[in-house]
Amino acid sequence: MCELLGMSANVPTDICFSFSGLVKRGGETGPHKDGWGITFYEGKGCRSFKDPKPSCDSRVAELVKDYPIKSKSVISHIRQANRGGVSLENTHPFIRELWGQNWTYAHNGQLTGYEDLPLGHAHPVGQTDSERAFCWIIDKLHQSYQTAPEDMLTMFKEIAGYADELRQLGVFNMLLSNGEYVMCYCTNNLHWITRRAPFGKAQLIDEDMIVDFCEETSDSDVVTVIATRPLTSDEQWNKMGEGEFSVFHFGERVL
Amino acid sequence: MCELLGMSANVPTDICFSFSGLVKRGGETGPHKDGWGITFYEGKGCRSFKDPKPSCDSRVAELVKDYPIKSKSVISHIRQANRGGVSLENTHPFIRELWGQNWTYAHNGQLTGYEDLPLGHAHPVGQTDSERAFCWIIDKLHQSYQTAPEDMLTMFKEIAGYADELRQLGVFNMLLSNGEYVMCYCTNNLHWITRRAPFGKAQLIDEDMIVDFCEETSDSDVVTVIATRPLTSDEQWNKMGEGEFSVFHFGERVL
Repeated sequence: MCELLGMSANVPTDICFSFSGLVKRGGETGPHKDGWGITFYEGKGCRSFKDPKPSCDSRVAELVKDYPIKSKSVISHIRQANRGGVSLENTHPFIRELWGQNWTYAHNGQLTGYEDLPLGHAHPVGQTDSERAFCWIIDKLHQSYQTAPEDMLTMFKEIAGYADELRQLGVFNMLLSNGEYVMCYCTNNLHWITRRAPFGKAQLIDEDMIVDFCEETSDSDVVTVIATRPLTSDEQWNKMGEGEFSVFHFGERVL
Repeated sequence: MCELLGMSANVPTDICFSFSGLVKRGGETGPHKDGWGITFYEGKGCRSFKDPKPSCDSRVAELVKDYPIKSKSVISHIRQANRGGVSLENTHPFIRELWGQNWTYAHNGQLTGYEDLPLGHAHPVGQTDSERAFCWIIDKLHQSYQTAPEDMLTMFKEIAGYADELRQLGVFNMLLSNGEYVMCYCTNNLHWITRRAPFGKAQLIDEDMIVDFCEETSDSDVVTVIATRPLTSDEQWNKMGEGEFSVFHFGERVL
């Protein structure tokens, strides 16, 4: 199993605190030693840092942990390989351009029969079930909409339908973003929390680290964090059920 | 004008030395202060580092300069904005997946009438003439070949034909790679050098730095570097002429 981490916020927010917990699971407090990646959106642009090395001893992960890149939408993943070898091309998140938007995707789980998912324009670069499923979703969306739809929420419900189909092939926990929206889909393991004023303190589970969000935020901030397992021990995370999905728009849950 | 830097090598090679010279031109010895980016291939996968900040004071550029990521194919760019604002989405290199391969592209120059280049499946995320021209090339290739052609050299000649068309719109100096091949196309400013045994020393123009390639290489290494302007003062760089192009395959010139 891999670990997913996503963020959706109404102001550019750094994810250093949550990422500190996540990287520990990459080979130290967790078995996810087969690479990691993180994508930050800044406007319509995004930047990714990826490494097929374990995150707990990756120099690039060190940079990301210490360097407060502020973003409204973040998708991150640490990997324990099942389908596809340990290599950069098999390292999540995966990105494709659709309708002039960067779409970023990360998957946790395992699919069988994924080789039969039909391919159209988008083709996988690597060998994972995850990337193949992503290409299939992108093609479905491209078939449905020539340009970005006005009604994005209906479109996200459609994506949830595709995710339901993929769940028939195995375990499909997913994070997906176009920079404006962050969607999460659960088969068996996904939690989220929305932090807003009054902000308090939180204790990271995987590292001896406490953050006082009060010092880091203003009263109007709304920050949602999505993770495979709760990252803090003293907050109430929402546990998602099988087949459930949520969509966040700059921090606020809209679906 | 922007500065381009590319590398094609037969063994994974670090580009720290050349990149050290390039980043100086990003706001210190050159006026290219509107961002920079670099893409390294590792197998079929690639990783990019990008920053809309000047490269000479970018923390991420520091990391890249010091961290010897070894790669056989590299595309890099520092930007002086003309078309499109200073933002991450307008920062080169641009990447699109085609035929299950990551295609990376950077452009130096300026095009007029680029808004009329027809778009198909690939759409620009940002507002630059450069990205629009890239999307147009990708669509042309997609129209010509459903899958990666057996005869890649004929395909690169086709790309040179598209580049000739783009040159009619202004200045079009380009670097393009699918990880295996690195192509460069010149309108007015592009130089390349192939280093092979016996290796010697070289003096960087933009920084007081000498490298002894002899210490860094083995006798069978073949490393080609492509740059807008020569990066070293004591080596013979090949100056390209208007409309000329070259294609390198793991260091060796094949076209």
